[in-house]
Amino acid sequence: MFNDFKIVDDRPVYRQLRDYLKETILKGHLLEHQKLPSTRELSKLLSVSRNTVLTAYADLEQDGLIYAIKGKGNFIGKVETFKTSSIELNWNERLNNVALLADELDVMKQGIFWEKGMISFNSIAPEEKLFDVENFKRAFLTRMSIEGDIVLNYGYAKGYKPLIDYLLHYMEMKGVDITNKDILITNGFTEGLDILLSSLAKKSGRVLCENPTHHAALKLFRLHGLDIHGIDMKDDGIDISKVEKSLSEAAFDFAYLIPSYHNPTGIVTSSDKRSEIIKLFSKYQIPIVEDGFNEELRYSGSHLAPLMTYIGAGNNVIYISSFSKILFPGLRVGWILADKELIHSLESMKRARTIHTSTLDQAVLYQYLHDGYFERYLKKAKSVYKKKYELVRQACNQYIPFKRMTGDGGLHLFIELEEGINARTLLKKCYQKGVVFYPGDVFYTDGGGSNTLRLGFSRLNEEDIVQGVKIIGNTLKNEMGS
Amino acid sequence: MFNDFKIVDDRPVYRQLRDYLKETILKGHLLEHQKLPSTRELSKLLSVSRNTVLTAYADLEQDGLIYAIKGKGNFIGKVETFKTSSIELNWNERLNNVALLADELDVMKQGIFWEKGMISFNSIAPEEKLFDVENFKRAFLTRMSIEGDIVLNYGYAKGYKPLIDYLLHYMEMKGVDITNKDILITNGFTEGLDILLSSLAKKSGRVLCENPTHHAALKLFRLHGLDIHGIDMKDDGIDISKVEKSLSEAAFDFAYLIPSYHNPTGIVTSSDKRSEIIKLFSKYQIPIVEDGFNEELRYSGSHLAPLMTYIGAGNNVIYISSFSKILFPGLRVGWILADKELIHSLESMKRARTIHTSTLDQAVLYQYLHDGYFERYLKKAKSVYKKKYELVRQACNQYIPFKRMTGDGGLHLFIELEEGINARTLLKKCYQKGVVFYPGDVFYTDGGGSNTLRLGFSRLNEEDIVQGVKIIGNTLKNEMGS
Repeated sequence: MFNDFKIVDDRPVYRQLRDYLKETILKGHLLEHQKLPSTRELSKLLSVSRNTVLTAYADLEQDGLIYAIKGKGNFIGKVETFKTSSIELNWNERLNNVALLADELDVMKQGIFWEKGMISFNSIAPEEKLFDVENFKRAFLTRMSIEGDIVLNYGYAKGYKPLIDYLLHYMEMKGVDITNKDILITNGFTEGLDILLSSLAKKSGRVLCENPTHHAALKLFRLHGLDIHGIDMKDDGIDISKVEKSLSEAAFDFAYLIPSYHNPTGIVTSSDKRSEIIKLFSKYQIPIVEDGFNEELRYSGSHLAPLMTYIGAGNNVIYISSFSKILFPGLRVGWILADKELIHSLESMKRARTIHTSTLDQAVLYQYLHDGYFERYLKKAKSVYKKKYELVRQACNQYIPFKRMTGDGGLHLFIELEEGINARTLLKKCYQKGVVFYPGDVFYTDGGGSNTLRLGFSRLNEEDIVQGVKIIGNTLKNEMGS
Repeated sequence: MFNDFKIVDDRPVYRQLRDYLKETILKGHLLEHQKLPSTRELSKLLSVSRNTVLTAYADLEQDGLIYAIKGKGNFIGKVETFKTSSIELNWNERLNNVALLADELDVMKQGIFWEKGMISFNSIAPEEKLFDVENFKRAFLTRMSIEGDIVLNYGYAKGYKPLIDYLLHYMEMKGVDITNKDILITNGFTEGLDILLSSLAKKSGRVLCENPTHHAALKLFRLHGLDIHGIDMKDDGIDISKVEKSLSEAAFDFAYLIPSYHNPTGIVTSSDKRSEIIKLFSKYQIPIVEDGFNEELRYSGSHLAPLMTYIGAGNNVIYISSFSKILFPGLRVGWILADKELIHSLESMKRARTIHTSTLDQAVLYQYLHDGYFERYLKKAKSVYKKKYELVRQACNQYIPFKRMTGDGGLHLFIELEEGINARTLLKKCYQKGVVFYPGDVFYTDGGGSNTLRLGFSRLNEEDIVQGVKIIGNTLKNEMGS
């Protein structure tokens, strides 16, 4: 007994000893009222200091696992040991269809992934090396010194007030009329969309969106049992005549649109088209859920206002966004900007589900934004991404025999290959050569897109970008007969 | 023009000037191709440095709001101004019943609240003054220096690996057999429960729970359309003979139990009863959702193991917990410990809804736990709370004419008044005298409990505890005829 104790890691020795004793007691290797070795004995036996044993015993007593009798020593307390006949439920039989569908639609559980040393065009997350860690630390320390105890305690479901005010001003500066509008802070864009979908009544049960579109949004539409009606993309945004036709033919609960650096096509909806979209949907009284995705990553060209700007004091656009694709996605902070009454209702759904978004995340993000670090960071990040963007376009033009390439900025390009070429077959072959990308079919609403792929370039260096595109192109030409 | 510009806050002047100009342009007060004043002119006009104007102009150009012609100056770009005829949707008509119910059940939107200067027994959140802000900062800086860029980028839906491993060990030290079990990190307890409820099939659609019970859990059961079957509490936990009767009479999808410092009664389920509970539910093959609430806040007595410990290698208990009631609730971190296969399914639901829990929160919490700060903090917190606990019990015994008082530790007591006394009427009267508490009826599954109240004491000082209890007692005696 006790001589199998070993110091295994860098935790304080008393904690390792305590845990060892705890385990021994809980496993029933020591009997109730059994006397423990004196602290002197045990310290000698295990070659640890007597203080270590004293502290470990004190903790065990605190936990009610042992008890001390003055002058007599320490004894094992009453502890249940658990050798019950355990039962096994079949959990799979107890899951509902939504859970099974979530599992089935989980792209992270299937497909071909990046392995170390590979060139991966999968990610559209920001490049970690660009992170402004020092200023982030500074923002943290500043906020903590202002109200550390507040930051660490419960906050409000609606969000951290200074951040909400900042974001309202931020959106106003984009041209949005914020009268009668309000903000709910969410755990990123995804929770924002999920809370909204969980709150909207299903009247027609139909949603209109761009085809292809953001696969996480598609997944949520499917999990919410919505009927998805996708509409083709032209080079300046959604095909407006097809939208008009659809709206005149059927009822829709809402539309979901990504006007800037659309995921996955990278297309930016033109200013004229934005205006037409608003007119059309207003006419049919169909609200628009606008995904503010990557809006900040404009590398050139004239000012572009969010769709929400075009409704003025109206309330038929719900804007959902986050800085996750630009700033720190590890912080899960997004927001819904919408009609004040609607936000008031969504706030209760948010409270019921997750109480509120991390106050720490919100408070540090607020300080980082307030101190102007974000603007500076964005300038730097844009110049780095712009270079990569130009490089990847040029390389694709040079090496890949595509039918169509789209992407007006942002962190990815979208490629349509000749009909009949299967991007998943291409992916398998490229994988052999150490290059992976995202097959485009997961973004399609109608099972199409088997000949498409998305190339995310944010986290690759220049050399890998060129090398990777070259390999994709050569594989296409040499092995796919393209 | 321009002379209504004013420096209003502590942000850099160039940002205030830029925002002012942006607003002016977006509002359409300047026309396309109109020439802006030269930087020299504007700096003189506004009494700001020329550099300020230069930087503001550069930003506006970046945003595509103005353009520069070499040697000629700066001009207004093409900017949409939005004077559309805006439409107003009636959002209330577009919400579903779940959203309307969430709004209706939102206790934060009704009732009587704390106002500055009042003695409030509402909260069971931890006392902010106890927060160990310095060590929290230390943990943050340590983790950031180890892997700041990782902490700030996307993580995994399942959670931050070091934290998961830590918690598995932590639960093992409580006696849980973790073979074939796994952990999913969630945004606090509430998201954990919501994800589970969203994933379980409705077979009978019935849940069995203690009556009264945690109101946030009750709310979620109602939002998920479950039929709630509450069972009375005895002084050592749920009435087991009533449980047996219910199980023999009807089918249940699962049970929800809070064995330690039960919310709201504060009752700790005895060791014998824990064992009986497991035997009974195992016999009927009904899984138990165990709420690990406040388990750590044991002030005295022998070791008590979570219900999950009693199932050994079985998989019929799902344990959901967080440190929110003890440590830092502003960090939204909780966890589900359950059957490995079940966790694998729940992980997809988590990913679909919120991608993952804040990596920052998880990483800093991990470091704080790993460095042993939590243990030290817990010792200090327990000794402070224990004192308050003893004081509030004593005061209640002295001043309040109750029928029953329960609470074996934790951060609150529960009081049952004589039949016929309405706690909400009492609350209204106490509010006049500057004292508020939580009416107990919100915790009841069956509309009962109108004569009950919960007293949370964690955030009150000793003087206010005694004073507050005295006022409640005197109001009862003098104005309610008790």
